Amino acid sequence: MSFNTFGHMFRVTTFGESHGPALGCVVDGCPPHIPLKPADIQQHLDRRRPGQSRFTTQRREPDAVKILSGVFQDPATGEDVTTGTPIMLLIENVDQRSKDYAEIKDIYRPGHAGLTYDFKYGFHDYRGGGRASARETAARVAAGAVARKVVPGLMVRGALVQMGPHKVDREKWDWAEIDRNPFFCPDAERAAFFADYLDEIRKRGSSIGAVIEIIAEGVPSGLGAPVYGKLDGDLAAGLMGINAVKGVEIGEGFAVAALTGEENADEIRMGNDGRPRFLSNHAGGILGGISTGQLVIARFAVKPTSSILTPRRTVDRFGNETEVVTKGRHDPCVGIRAVPIGEAMVACVIADHYLRQRGQVGGPAVWPFPK
Amino acid sequence: MSFNTFGHMFRVTTFGESHGPALGCVVDGCPPHIPLKPADIQQHLDRRRPGQSRFTTQRREPDAVKILSGVFQDPATGEDVTTGTPIMLLIENVDQRSKDYAEIKDIYRPGHAGLTYDFKYGFHDYRGGGRASARETAARVAAGAVARKVVPGLMVRGALVQMGPHKVDREKWDWAEIDRNPFFCPDAERAAFFADYLDEIRKRGSSIGAVIEIIAEGVPSGLGAPVYGKLDGDLAAGLMGINAVKGVEIGEGFAVAALTGEENADEIRMGNDGRPRFLSNHAGGILGGISTGQLVIARFAVKPTSSILTPRRTVDRFGNETEVVTKGRHDPCVGIRAVPIGEAMVACVIADHYLRQRGQVGGPAVWPFPK
Amino acid sequence: MSFNTFGHMFRVTTFGESHGPALGCVVDGCPPHIPLKPADIQQHLDRRRPGQSRFTTQRREPDAVKILSGVFQDPATGEDVTTGTPIMLLIENVDQRSKDYAEIKDIYRPGHAGLTYDFKYGFHDYRGGGRASARETAARVAAGAVARKVVPGLMVRGALVQMGPHKVDREKWDWAEIDRNPFFCPDAERAAFFADYLDEIRKRGSSIGAVIEIIAEGVPSGLGAPVYGKLDGDLAAGLMGINAVKGVEIGEGFAVAALTGEENADEIRMGNDGRPRFLSNHAGGILGGISTGQLVIARFAVKPTSSILTPRRTVDRFGNETEVVTKGRHDPCVGIRAVPIGEAMVACVIADHYLRQRGQVGGPAVWPFPK
Amino acid sequence: MSFNTFGHMFRVTTFGESHGPALGCVVDGCPPHIPLKPADIQQHLDRRRPGQSRFTTQRREPDAVKILSGVFQDPATGEDVTTGTPIMLLIENVDQRSKDYAEIKDIYRPGHAGLTYDFKYGFHDYRGGGRASARETAARVAAGAVARKVVPGLMVRGALVQMGPHKVDREKWDWAEIDRNPFFCPDAERAAFFADYLDEIRKRGSSIGAVIEIIAEGVPSGLGAPVYGKLDGDLAAGLMGINAVKGVEIGEGFAVAALTGEENADEIRMGNDGRPRFLSNHAGGILGGISTGQLVIARFAVKPTSSILTPRRTVDRFGNETEVVTKGRHDPCVGIRAVPIGEAMVACVIADHYLRQRGQVGGPAVWPFPK
Repeated sequence: MSFNTFGHMFRVTTFGESHGPALGCVVDGCPPHIPLKPADIQQHLDRRRPGQSRFTTQRREPDAVKILSGVFQDPATGEDVTTGTPIMLLIENVDQRSKDYAEIKDIYRPGHAGLTYDFKYGFHDYRGGGRASARETAARVAAGAVARKVVPGLMVRGALVQMGPHKVDREKWDWAEIDRNPFFCPDAERAAFFADYLDEIRKRGSSIGAVIEIIAEGVPSGLGAPVYGKLDGDLAAGLMGINAVKGVEIGEGFAVAALTGEENADEIRMGNDGRPRFLSNHAGGILGGISTGQLVIARFAVKPTSSILTPRRTVDRFGNETEVVTKGRHDPCVGIRAVPIGEAMVACVIADHYLRQRGQVGGPAVWPFPK
Repeated sequence: MSFNTFGHMFRVTTFGESHGPALGCVVDGCPPHIPLKPADIQQHLDRRRPGQSRFTTQRREPDAVKILSGVFQDPATGEDVTTGTPIMLLIENVDQRSKDYAEIKDIYRPGHAGLTYDFKYGFHDYRGGGRASARETAARVAAGAVARKVVPGLMVRGALVQMGPHKVDREKWDWAEIDRNPFFCPDAERAAFFADYLDEIRKRGSSIGAVIEIIAEGVPSGLGAPVYGKLDGDLAAGLMGINAVKGVEIGEGFAVAALTGEENADEIRMGNDGRPRFLSNHAGGILGGISTGQLVIARFAVKPTSSILTPRRTVDRFGNETEVVTKGRHDPCVGIRAVPIGEAMVACVIADHYLRQRGQVGGPAVWPFPK
Repeated sequence: MSFNTFGHMFRVTTFGESHGPALGCVVDGCPPHIPLKPADIQQHLDRRRPGQSRFTTQRREPDAVKILSGVFQDPATGEDVTTGTPIMLLIENVDQRSKDYAEIKDIYRPGHAGLTYDFKYGFHDYRGGGRASARETAARVAAGAVARKVVPGLMVRGALVQMGPHKVDREKWDWAEIDRNPFFCPDAERAAFFADYLDEIRKRGSSIGAVIEIIAEGVPSGLGAPVYGKLDGDLAAGLMGINAVKGVEIGEGFAVAALTGEENADEIRMGNDGRPRFLSNHAGGILGGISTGQLVIARFAVKPTSSILTPRRTVDRFGNETEVVTKGRHDPCVGIRAVPIGEAMVACVIADHYLRQRGQVGGPAVWPFPK
Repeated sequence: MSFNTFGHMFRVTTFGESHGPALGCVVDGCPPHIPLKPADIQQHLDRRRPGQSRFTTQRREPDAVKILSGVFQDPATGEDVTTGTPIMLLIENVDQRSKDYAEIKDIYRPGHAGLTYDFKYGFHDYRGGGRASARETAARVAAGAVARKVVPGLMVRGALVQMGPHKVDREKWDWAEIDRNPFFCPDAERAAFFADYLDEIRKRGSSIGAVIEIIAEGVPSGLGAPVYGKLDGDLAAGLMGINAVKGVEIGEGFAVAALTGEENADEIRMGNDGRPRFLSNHAGGILGGISTGQLVIARFAVKPTSSILTPRRTVDRFGNETEVVTKGRHDPCVGIRAVPIGEAMVACVIADHYLRQRGQVGGPAVWPFPK
């Protein structure tokens, strides 16, 4: 893992700035013979794509993906499949309005990375946040679409479970609702509430935070490793590395602090399939850094968009004190579009560990070991 | 970063099981000319060492560290300093009571990694948790002691801020208190309460979770990188990779979900030193994955020790259903000893990024860039 | 270093097949503030470009490079400079004649990688060699052009020093000759001979091997590291990884086998600059894996092009025995165009070690250490 | 691969100096369930061990290896097997005569790494070469002993094929001879000649170079990868990284320069096993960076020991010009003991690629791909 590469066996290297000609990624290490066509990727990009409701930025980006390498016609089936060589996914930027940024090019916007980029590099591409823009995450979603196909039976889904102080009612969780509202909210009632709630915030030029939950189904047991290759450690890195994320939890998360050992224990019985079966899942599907075979459950907190209409005190690149108001086009709750991004990161981590496990141990997890 | 290596420029590879002959680590990439003697490391190991109060396991391990390589007498000063070659730190195990484990060697203890290790590898060293034991963290603390010396002016301190549902009072935070109670608790009053609270838990053979906060002072601005080399991403991986950790936060953490953009903004003015100065630190010292020069603030949640006296339902290696009670010697709140471990991981991440920043950009952070 | 990534701090990830839509690379870890425009890269691509004489393949590829990210206008100078974020270099394929390959798509050509790709992946993109094509090296040359700018004062030049059994006369070495003949040959007389020699080989549809020498000037002392980060170890990996290379030498290379310790010793005196000065350079500028500050000298052997007109016995993908003749467009001596590729790999390795040295030790090499 | 780590899935991290308390390595990523006892490793260490004939240094090191972690009793067989966690191999130094080095501690010996270490780090552990000592290679041999067991059916053997200008007669190659003479020489007649030849060199305090050939049998087809994970690229890095090595060849090596395409082609027919069979092996078992299933053949050139009795001109650490004679205990032909070291590096590279191949592609190489 370097500055712009994620993963070990399934490796994703992304590039590109918000207002440059294009962004994208190179996926290296993908197994061969996996059917892959642009539509497989596009469907996930379309979920992240801006401009689909009044609750996301009005920038109009088709986010159309091109596969430039690593895919070829399978001689047996005639279908396009991965070849095992690097898969290059390119997304051209179309709707850059760099002029929006000209007037604030020397002014640091609180909560944005402009100042820290300057602390590090001495200057930065200020247009639309440059490399620090959430547009970079389109490349992650594209890579994640490939990752999803690497692990047979894997399904990774996400949901917005909290906006502001308002949580969804888990009793009313319905995955089908996710696609029916612009919030990826699994609770229809809460979604209706969110529409009004966020409208009010949007109209006054403010913004609000959110919590996203990602659930991975079909994760084989035995993925992950001691002690720095833990599945939860890599999930934490992947999710915390998404723009604006300030917290990550696995399973019970911070709630474990208040639990006793008795309460937190996931007891075990034998399942009908002859394998051990957990009676609960406080652990979020990971014990000792290794997957249990249960649902893998992760949550992350996304801060409110820093671009707001209320003037904030700041300084400019020349050391002058000033105030800034961010006009431009922005998401009032950037957490919403983080749902498909979180899914993508989780899928990439699981695909990577699936291949690493296969490399070290040689195949599907083994249990029980012959006595 | 492989399974048992952490970091990129400052790389730590650990090895060893709880009841094997020894454990330790190899630190590779450390700069030369850093004064290093065993006592520099020992002082931190002693803080993590078990058996120092009735609130931690009674296993008696001196945790005496030996430096086997990478240090030599500086010809100018006569002092032992790092040479730039790998530093090998060895800690011998002394007080293994493997017999304690013989009777439960085939039984999976809920909350322990035995079952997932078997899912992955087919079998495991069951004595004291083997590689999954918290003893491995002694190697991390040793590596962290070296890391602390890599970044000039860096001070990394930790505190237990919550045990069970009980939080410390931040108004009463006194760093000097940390060393005066067996909980690394910065609030003297709360520490007194914790003594009774944990005694009660310990006596009934139960356990409880905790939240730890790590604060790094003297972190230069400009450390970290887009987009997968983010400082917060690497901190999350490092902290989530500590045994029993289920959640990680930076700055406001999960509280950001309920904040508006106005509330969360860290406004900026010019400081007396001619550099920008933030008026608050909701961000926990990191923006866009890069350090701001403020305090870096991270928190993590530690689950209650899984080893408890109350019988839990489980299965054995042969597929028989049974119950298990963990006797042995255990910490009723494993979060306590996680404080020096968390400090070590934070120090390692910062040292790594300090060297990576120096490599790419060539020296201390630059601001302002010449106009 | 993964399958398609080279380097550690200065990291190059390449992608693309010979007859796909495009190939290119992502350069990650490049320092900021380095002036970089397409012409800086194009001049090196033009030296590798096919179709420039009758001695190279007649495929007509402009090899025009586009910079898609990682470069922005320096606010101080108005010049385009690197930003420190990933630099994406794209080269579109233009003159693919995939039909040339249709008739041999199922037949393994001896000396080509088609069969081993199938052994590994089960199938491969057969058009023009796919990923194993020498076209991939255009991406290396592009990355090398960036690498050359990373190390101040670095000059990396290469020359063809042997074709078939015929070596150049080192007494007649003239760097200016390199650009005056189509062989990158530093010996004008030998170059004239090579024109006739290679014409004869070309006309009869045969091919011939070659030896290339790369000389790097201005390599700071102190680059490289014990024991698996040796400068010569990484040079060997980089050069052996070029298509068709079967041997690599540093300094005296294989000739050391016949030397005594007295003959091989590079004696040392004090130079006028107050630093040690070697009286010879049998070592090729590297001792113990670390640069001495002298010229770094490497050589590599390139096998004859496998694509020849003489029928060779082989098999097809279905297990039928057959014969194959390679028509298409090919270089009779693929070693010629390996000169700029070898330069690029050497430049990348040196740039990488320059940054790694700076990261670990903090700046230019230090000597003498204060007494 | 960092400074002191080698490999990706099968990762070896070594540490230790010639005259420190110990040296060794951590092997990470090794599959579980591989029987491993100290004797498996010791037999290879004993072949590299000094002091076994008058032709190697008289330093008396038992090189006794201890396994400190990563091995546990298999519950099914009772045998000690790897667990999948890091394997720590420790070798204590016993016969350090550091006083031998006191008088030359400030003097740079031509051909040694002392000066370049000082250029890099400002000072170094001068005792016996410190980290640059050939003693470090004991750790490689130990790791290689583990690597040999990772790939079923793999046999890696080496031989000294040239000493000074004198090559072995390949017609007289007999693997059984290797163990019958102190030179690892496969040609009995040549071995007898070498005894006199090297005695003469040894007696006059001189030294001589050598060429070593390593042959790996049982390498599955399909190992390696485009384009920076080539099997030959990694072999080149591994072999060039051995102390005193100045050249590496695969298959025909530098001889390819003088071959035509017709001569160099390895033609193919169908074998009795229904798989393609090569009629020759100019390629040394590797095409396009991927193994063909034939013998993998590599050679490397080792320079003459730099420690000789003839005075050589040099300088000291303070900039004074002087002369140096190296007394101490040294090998007159350091190439001899490089044979087991070369074997170890080749075994490590193959084991690494075996696991990487299994990770990406999922198991043994596939051919033919279903039509």
